[in-house]
Amino acid sequence: MTSPIVAVIGGGQLARMMTPAATALGITLRVLVESDEASAAAPAHETVVGLPTDPDAVARLLAAPRPEVVTWEHEHIPAEVFDACEAAGVPARPGLGALRYAQDKIAMRQRMDELGLPSPDWHAALGDEDVDRFLASHGGEAILKTARGGYDGKGVRVIRSVADAHDWIAAEAAGGPRLLLEAKVPFTRELAVQVARRPSGEMRTWPVVESIQRDGVCSEVTAPAPGLAPERAEEAAAIARTIAESLDVTGVLAVELFETVDGLLINELAMRPHNSGHWTIDGAVTSQFEQHLRAVLDLPLGETAASAPWTVLGGARTDLPGALADLDDPGARVHLYGKGVRPGRKVGHVTVVGREREETYARAVRSAAIVRDGGAA
Amino acid sequence: MTSPIVAVIGGGQLARMMTPAATALGITLRVLVESDEASAAAPAHETVVGLPTDPDAVARLLAAPRPEVVTWEHEHIPAEVFDACEAAGVPARPGLGALRYAQDKIAMRQRMDELGLPSPDWHAALGDEDVDRFLASHGGEAILKTARGGYDGKGVRVIRSVADAHDWIAAEAAGGPRLLLEAKVPFTRELAVQVARRPSGEMRTWPVVESIQRDGVCSEVTAPAPGLAPERAEEAAAIARTIAESLDVTGVLAVELFETVDGLLINELAMRPHNSGHWTIDGAVTSQFEQHLRAVLDLPLGETAASAPWTVLGGARTDLPGALADLDDPGARVHLYGKGVRPGRKVGHVTVVGREREETYARAVRSAAIVRDGGAA
Repeated sequence: MTSPIVAVIGGGQLARMMTPAATALGITLRVLVESDEASAAAPAHETVVGLPTDPDAVARLLAAPRPEVVTWEHEHIPAEVFDACEAAGVPARPGLGALRYAQDKIAMRQRMDELGLPSPDWHAALGDEDVDRFLASHGGEAILKTARGGYDGKGVRVIRSVADAHDWIAAEAAGGPRLLLEAKVPFTRELAVQVARRPSGEMRTWPVVESIQRDGVCSEVTAPAPGLAPERAEEAAAIARTIAESLDVTGVLAVELFETVDGLLINELAMRPHNSGHWTIDGAVTSQFEQHLRAVLDLPLGETAASAPWTVLGGARTDLPGALADLDDPGARVHLYGKGVRPGRKVGHVTVVGREREETYARAVRSAAIVRDGGAA
Repeated sequence: MTSPIVAVIGGGQLARMMTPAATALGITLRVLVESDEASAAAPAHETVVGLPTDPDAVARLLAAPRPEVVTWEHEHIPAEVFDACEAAGVPARPGLGALRYAQDKIAMRQRMDELGLPSPDWHAALGDEDVDRFLASHGGEAILKTARGGYDGKGVRVIRSVADAHDWIAAEAAGGPRLLLEAKVPFTRELAVQVARRPSGEMRTWPVVESIQRDGVCSEVTAPAPGLAPERAEEAAAIARTIAESLDVTGVLAVELFETVDGLLINELAMRPHNSGHWTIDGAVTSQFEQHLRAVLDLPLGETAASAPWTVLGGARTDLPGALADLDDPGARVHLYGKGVRPGRKVGHVTVVGREREETYARAVRSAAIVRDGGAA
């Protein structure tokens, strides 16, 4: 049998980090990249340059030798791409029936309600009156989100008055994305859980992690979530499994959760490898990237157990090669995304595994800071 | 700082397995591959097609944007390549001063003798009389080797008479490789130890492993070597460090050893990642592939400790993708080399890490056998 081809739409760091797993499994990764400078362009086995909105580019992605399957590293996939996959006879995983709930936050919240899964109070924002009423019943403060197009803190805003929402409401009226309001949750911390599911139904979840966000970007992840009650961990895993099964998700699903004194609330969904799962490269038997490829190819899933008592990941925000010479922790595992430096941009991460949580955390944060601060050389 | 470029000569599985480490470290790997079908061709970040004996190909490998360093995945590097590197101002690591001892087994044995390091009895075979005398003084049996060009059991032969050596002696007289004789060592098992050394002198050794060869190809590796006395392990590590330092090796050095009832004897040297070190991808904090890149770039070396009590590797001899669906051990880590199937050829390996040696060994051998026997689909 020749090397199976997996086509990936999107050339960012998630596609980049799929390539080592594809190489090990003997899979050819054919990636649709926005440009030759994209994060995944050099590591990809084959590249097609173009956007998912360009039918010619999509046709080249699907051309012979034909991929076994098409998957995504982001949610912004036009419906026409699914039509093109169907016409070419190439399965698209996850399919549009699942992906729409990761594309549209209003559809997602409605579906979670139907499934009886816990969300923060929410409301589709139809105009000033809706916003006013929601603010009044939630202590004068709420989260306003665009239903589509948000990422890394974009498309999310805290509002305290209708005036804070006026520009987005006007944009919506002018044909922009729909808006929704969510209660600002008094969470004690943020958790995330990932599950992989293959078309034949097999599912595996990784340990639940704690994540710390700074400026809307994932900054630190600790696996497993420290001090999490086993029944709460099982509840999180059950939420992920219910969503994956009910929505017919194939591939990796990440569920971001708020932990409050009263229990868990679903924050966001992502149907692809997710930054809360990067720790699995160094800290789990099977990484989320390998598992995503196995799952979309409908191959047996790999073991998801942690391979060390603690794994901590720290985000790095400048370019690293200049700083690798300064890293003085030989156990720090470095992962760069091949991105140009831009202030505040996350350009990589550092992972440390260890036996003691506090020491492991301190080492990860310290090494990520060396990378972050020392990289200007 | 932009992404540093490391140039690699040779497009086999060793260059292939350097690519994930290069991607993680933000290094661009530019590989001189024999053809577009080479094992490393698709995973490499940049490729130049050609042979190391082709000056034009080497010139393209060294062209702007210029690599920081040139390294190798095999020993068969003509001296002219080192001249080209020097003319281009690009360091070659390991340098010819070191690599010649991995290229020429007679030079290696002489150097080991000078260093007082333990080799089997050996003799440069200059003709029939030499062979006769060596056989007579070693129980009528010896190993005949070509000084250059051997690999995977090629260039090595057991002889019991001068007649067994005649064709190679004739080939040598006609300008073929020089020959040497070695005593057939009554070893109890084969061990291997690896050390990485950077130009500034830092060295790190991995745990000593036991390897089992079948038909001249590495079939199983167990890390650490079961039941190895600590002082014997330290002796092996000291041998590796002495060689690396005395020969000014940069990058990864593998020393294959015979363990006998009387102690250790040096079998072979390799100045590059080596099949006895593939276990480090899944079983050590830093893999030999990442370490080789760090070392030749003169970056701080990574931790070399094992990350689990036992790691066992089994070689796979047929193509895998057809059999991945049959692998029923979710903890088996699969590594394919992207090679076409040819009878008896090693096309990948499977690694299992675990807490109990016997179980870990059985799992690795079993999964490698599924890959081997089930891959014909």
